[in-house]
Amino acid sequence: MVVVKSPILRHIRRKPLQFVAPVVTLILVLYLIVGRSSGKTKGKYSYKSRSKGLFSRPRDVIPRNLPNDHISHYDLNKLASTPMAAYNQERVLILSPMSRFYDEYWANLLKLTYPRELIELGFIVPRTADGDVALKKLEKAVKLVQSPRNSKEAKFAKITILRQDNESLQSQKEKDRHALSVQKERRANMALARNSLLFTTIGPYTSWVLWLDADIVETPNTLIQDLAGHDKPVISANCYQRYFDDEKKEDSIRPYDFNNWVESDEGLRIASTMSDDDIIVEGYHDIATYRPLMAHFYDPNGDVNTEMQLDGVGGAAVMVKADVHRDGAMFPSFPFYHLIETEGFAKMAKRLGYEVFGLPNYLVFHFNE
Amino acid sequence: MVVVKSPILRHIRRKPLQFVAPVVTLILVLYLIVGRSSGKTKGKYSYKSRSKGLFSRPRDVIPRNLPNDHISHYDLNKLASTPMAAYNQERVLILSPMSRFYDEYWANLLKLTYPRELIELGFIVPRTADGDVALKKLEKAVKLVQSPRNSKEAKFAKITILRQDNESLQSQKEKDRHALSVQKERRANMALARNSLLFTTIGPYTSWVLWLDADIVETPNTLIQDLAGHDKPVISANCYQRYFDDEKKEDSIRPYDFNNWVESDEGLRIASTMSDDDIIVEGYHDIATYRPLMAHFYDPNGDVNTEMQLDGVGGAAVMVKADVHRDGAMFPSFPFYHLIETEGFAKMAKRLGYEVFGLPNYLVFHFNE
Repeated sequence: MVVVKSPILRHIRRKPLQFVAPVVTLILVLYLIVGRSSGKTKGKYSYKSRSKGLFSRPRDVIPRNLPNDHISHYDLNKLASTPMAAYNQERVLILSPMSRFYDEYWANLLKLTYPRELIELGFIVPRTADGDVALKKLEKAVKLVQSPRNSKEAKFAKITILRQDNESLQSQKEKDRHALSVQKERRANMALARNSLLFTTIGPYTSWVLWLDADIVETPNTLIQDLAGHDKPVISANCYQRYFDDEKKEDSIRPYDFNNWVESDEGLRIASTMSDDDIIVEGYHDIATYRPLMAHFYDPNGDVNTEMQLDGVGGAAVMVKADVHRDGAMFPSFPFYHLIETEGFAKMAKRLGYEVFGLPNYLVFHFNE
Repeated sequence: MVVVKSPILRHIRRKPLQFVAPVVTLILVLYLIVGRSSGKTKGKYSYKSRSKGLFSRPRDVIPRNLPNDHISHYDLNKLASTPMAAYNQERVLILSPMSRFYDEYWANLLKLTYPRELIELGFIVPRTADGDVALKKLEKAVKLVQSPRNSKEAKFAKITILRQDNESLQSQKEKDRHALSVQKERRANMALARNSLLFTTIGPYTSWVLWLDADIVETPNTLIQDLAGHDKPVISANCYQRYFDDEKKEDSIRPYDFNNWVESDEGLRIASTMSDDDIIVEGYHDIATYRPLMAHFYDPNGDVNTEMQLDGVGGAAVMVKADVHRDGAMFPSFPFYHLIETEGFAKMAKRLGYEVFGLPNYLVFHFNE
């Protein structure tokens, strides 16, 4: 026989209903709330995806989490990609192929002011020794930001990490990477990586896809709002690099990505003489296309919102309306009009009837190795 | 004061703990079970995607349902598309653009013997009056099969229904549909529909994509196993149609889909004379390509497993390894080597380095209007 000493326990023992009843009620309420939203494990499902319930997501194009994922209705007509992206709670998918993890890239990502609960992240990491290191660092960083201790607002809506299943070039040093001879193979592999990442992460509720290379270490905090604000199917920032100018003895900037360009007569002429499997890669002296390169159009005193039409884009920081991808625009790993990867993507977007733009005075910065 | 008359209630009133304690325990257990798996609404998440828990899915490439969908790891290298698809629990995504709902299509789908819990379905329904009718019938059919009363094995893993956001041709009557003049526009629209459906339903865990047109009303019950068994990147069944032969006064069959073909010298010659935006559509007398058409290779006494290499495919019943799509193979809505839609897809798969096959003696049947 247990001797009850505490006066509270003694009280409970004497008038148990007074104590037990509220506990039962509390548990029942908890059960109802949790049970209601934990449909995934129960047999029930609701067929109506439009009704606004306690646990429905903000916009009705994004369905509630249906039990067992049985049926999801998506009305693509109601899914918009607008300049008022954040206000309209449009979902943004940021995709970064990652062979190296830079702390500065991650720090910059965390500084973006677009609501984090509307952002999904997708990474694809190559199957290399460098990739293994990058994956470990990425996982550590992800773990911190997605910690259960953080509020919903502090966490990204979803993070997907893929390991690349195709062969990767072992050496990813800057010099090697840029040798013209390996460009074709390197960029074909990169195209396959981008496609795997895109096809497996874009959802029916995605409004925008931001391609942000993992070596972009500095952007305006309002990158997403700024690029979405232009309301273009495809829009590319201008990618520069900070460096120390040894002559002037001061910090300076220089153009880095030459894949944002306008087609030239000479470029078209060269292409017309090429065989089907040849490609033109911009930014090398070996092939002089005389294409106007956006990198050279930067004007430090110019309007940051200046737009220019482009025919080729790089992958540094490119915002794409999800419908452009949904219509089929991908990154060709084979020569497409003698273009591959991001440059081929721009051509494909144009073949699908979309216009492609760049922002010459809107800078993002590449890591300086 | 309430007077308690029932002897049970009186007993509860006298010795309430005896009654309330088991109820509280039961509710607590229920709460723990439901609460455990209802992570979606709680702040917790598990970082390890490889461990096998109570609620983990069969293969470790398919991650557990992580709370809040925070982090999902997918190892594309472990994701296989093998001839032993069902045994290896490979996920199959069946995609059907649907402008009409045929009871026979649905009945045939339900007869397929591949494990239903490994099958996801995706539909895209055009924004037309016919589409509205099809959607209603489809929803009714879906509701029945996904009923909570059905066992897990009787239900599909997931069903996604999209409404098409691009313009659709209003008239979808057979005669109108096949007029050569509207083929290009119709098939460009169909390509956009297929791409929207593909991009938004393929997941990192998808092993196979089966394109099954919504007017295919009869296939072998082992369609998925049969096509997967050939272990080809892309493989197409031969699409025929049942009809009543007025001359012979008996039921008979005739070829229906002429989009499965082998390229010919004449086809290549015609293409070389065309402008970039012209297309060749197979199955019409207007352009004589002399391409060998798989429809004509059917041999009722031949081996059902006979394979032939193809250069163009139709969409009637085509099995695709998901990696082919993930690498970027989509349905061009613009002329791609003078081909569009499924025929352009076959060309794109080949440009990506994959081989395309057909099964001349393996028949599926098109609805007869």
